[in-house]
Amino acid sequence: MPLKPSARAAKVQPFIVMDFFREANALAAAGHDVVHMSAGQPAGGPPRKVVEAARAALDGAYMGYTDSLGLMSLRERIAAHYDAAYGVSVNPANIAITTGSSASFVIGFTACFDQGDQVGLTMPGYPAYRNIFEALGIRVKDIAVDARSRWAPTHAQIEQACDEGLNGLLLASPANPTGTMLSPDALADVAATCAKRDVWFISDEIYHGLNYEMPQACALSTNRQAIVINSFSKYYCMTGWRIGWMIVPEVLRRTVECLSQSLYISAPTLSQYAAIAAFDATEELEERKAGYRANRDFLLKELPGLGMGNLSPADGAFYLYADVGNLTNDSYAFARQMLNEAHVAATPGADFDTQRGNRFIRLSFAGSMQDMEKAVERLAKWLPKQG
Amino acid sequence: MPLKPSARAAKVQPFIVMDFFREANALAAAGHDVVHMSAGQPAGGPPRKVVEAARAALDGAYMGYTDSLGLMSLRERIAAHYDAAYGVSVNPANIAITTGSSASFVIGFTACFDQGDQVGLTMPGYPAYRNIFEALGIRVKDIAVDARSRWAPTHAQIEQACDEGLNGLLLASPANPTGTMLSPDALADVAATCAKRDVWFISDEIYHGLNYEMPQACALSTNRQAIVINSFSKYYCMTGWRIGWMIVPEVLRRTVECLSQSLYISAPTLSQYAAIAAFDATEELEERKAGYRANRDFLLKELPGLGMGNLSPADGAFYLYADVGNLTNDSYAFARQMLNEAHVAATPGADFDTQRGNRFIRLSFAGSMQDMEKAVERLAKWLPKQG
Repeated sequence: MPLKPSARAAKVQPFIVMDFFREANALAAAGHDVVHMSAGQPAGGPPRKVVEAARAALDGAYMGYTDSLGLMSLRERIAAHYDAAYGVSVNPANIAITTGSSASFVIGFTACFDQGDQVGLTMPGYPAYRNIFEALGIRVKDIAVDARSRWAPTHAQIEQACDEGLNGLLLASPANPTGTMLSPDALADVAATCAKRDVWFISDEIYHGLNYEMPQACALSTNRQAIVINSFSKYYCMTGWRIGWMIVPEVLRRTVECLSQSLYISAPTLSQYAAIAAFDATEELEERKAGYRANRDFLLKELPGLGMGNLSPADGAFYLYADVGNLTNDSYAFARQMLNEAHVAATPGADFDTQRGNRFIRLSFAGSMQDMEKAVERLAKWLPKQG
Repeated sequence: MPLKPSARAAKVQPFIVMDFFREANALAAAGHDVVHMSAGQPAGGPPRKVVEAARAALDGAYMGYTDSLGLMSLRERIAAHYDAAYGVSVNPANIAITTGSSASFVIGFTACFDQGDQVGLTMPGYPAYRNIFEALGIRVKDIAVDARSRWAPTHAQIEQACDEGLNGLLLASPANPTGTMLSPDALADVAATCAKRDVWFISDEIYHGLNYEMPQACALSTNRQAIVINSFSKYYCMTGWRIGWMIVPEVLRRTVECLSQSLYISAPTLSQYAAIAAFDATEELEERKAGYRANRDFLLKELPGLGMGNLSPADGAFYLYADVGNLTNDSYAFARQMLNEAHVAATPGADFDTQRGNRFIRLSFAGSMQDMEKAVERLAKWLPKQG
């Protein structure tokens, strides 16, 4: 019998963002001017201080493996950030530096869940969660959210999911693909519910720092057993550096260390040095954030006139989730056509919602204002004229 | 019931190398002069051309995510290397750039094996294999090797393991922790046996380039369905850059891409640029290799006089696996004492062999000759005098 992929791997769906990103890159390599609104990455490159720190490190700093949980200097810097940003005290020993938040997910999920365990996820949500769960044999309990609750799960939905048997709940605020945030009170309520019900609460805080409409809270403020995952990719603009972190309760510390040792060895060393400097780049990063906000406001103003009127509120992050049900009943084909004809790369909703995604696309507004203007101009030509 | 780690994570053993590495780092941070012979990493830092390429990239090159399978320029450069080094033709499309060989293992194992599948591993062997298998619910079939067959599995052992039911076989040549190599003919025999028996053959070629006694062969020369894993960490001296690659047959290509997308997104971008330059650093790298060889010869000459006479042959890589059964019956305690008292960090055999490891330690000779001399001097004082 010929060799073939494992059954579990065959079930892992593509991360469509990355498929469209690859196709957009291929078009760009072929000489086309593509507006990238598929992948969630800041277009402006890393902050100057990060680049300077990397350059300095290249002048002879140690470049070998680090301890599996990361450089203590970086872990201490992150702990200081929690104190300053949230008033939350975190022991640097409980901070694991990981190879992007991706590694935090793989390590965290493995540390908490066995094959057959069930974890609650909002739908729509970040596609890699589901795909990693599939690879690890963990079952997903979908918590369908929509515009009626501003794309956030309600208290009743969380309670019901717990009643039906949950080993964990994973939630992102600001959320992907909608940008929706839970208020600090709403987040505290979810965190406390999980604590009360003995359900692992994994709080994906990767879009923290990118909040436009309301204050942000850290899950640890309410639930000291929460697993908090964050990254230098989004607010700190360090996507390609593959550097993130995870805060874990003491009961998981050694487990997470052992998993990190064997699955990753350690996070990229140069990225660790550079990440320390990211905390000193606030001025530049706040300028970027102001740019995202301006992009968001521009799109919220312009897109409705193009027939994309049903947009998620985008309290934070840098995504709009657009209902394009009036333009197509197959948003995958729609997005592909948009890429190939208008050279505007977006992501079809199927990536985020396996049930209702065919009505939606996600637009990342992490690029420049010029990109946004170009996209709107092209879409105005490409989309059917509104009556 | 209080939350606790998953059962599978609780079964994942520490990667003892990394525990000793952390302890050695802590001693060094406390001001002690530690000779690092625990982790398998070149002490001299990355090659100059790699650093130059990284520095050049920092001057404005794109630093975002790459395609999940990596930069095509790097994949093409690796394909050219296979042509030049082995006379093996590889399609760049079938080369996945990964975050170190660690990611190749996680992705490759998930792509090939389901929960409950059984994979053959030599014992002793690289501990992370076993730990990743444990995390993924894959069973290990131990193939015990020892000095009598130069620490290599015999044809009969491979056949027997296949008879007993194997979904895959994973083999490293040069091997860790022994440095033993299979001759090209012996490797071809294993590769062909796997092909004949419809067993995935995963060839860990991470120590290729570091061969002192015999030519090296690539598994693809014999078995085009083999999965070949390699890295820029060892010969290319780029440990902390977390960059490696995997060559996969066409039947796995898309599966590996999908797993890479969700589990990793992409390998570190700066490391990818820098790795391209590693292929132009041959002169410097061959000097390093000559240094390892000199270190090996020095240790093979000096260690027997200290009571460490039973040493693995170390045809390649940069490890000696030393039988210290005449000095201790608990090599873990022995290695810890050696670290704390003599400030020489080695790795106890328990990391590589759960059955007989208590008789052995692994010594990495990837450091400088000065390190080797210092280690021998310290061990001469610390070890009981030989009669």
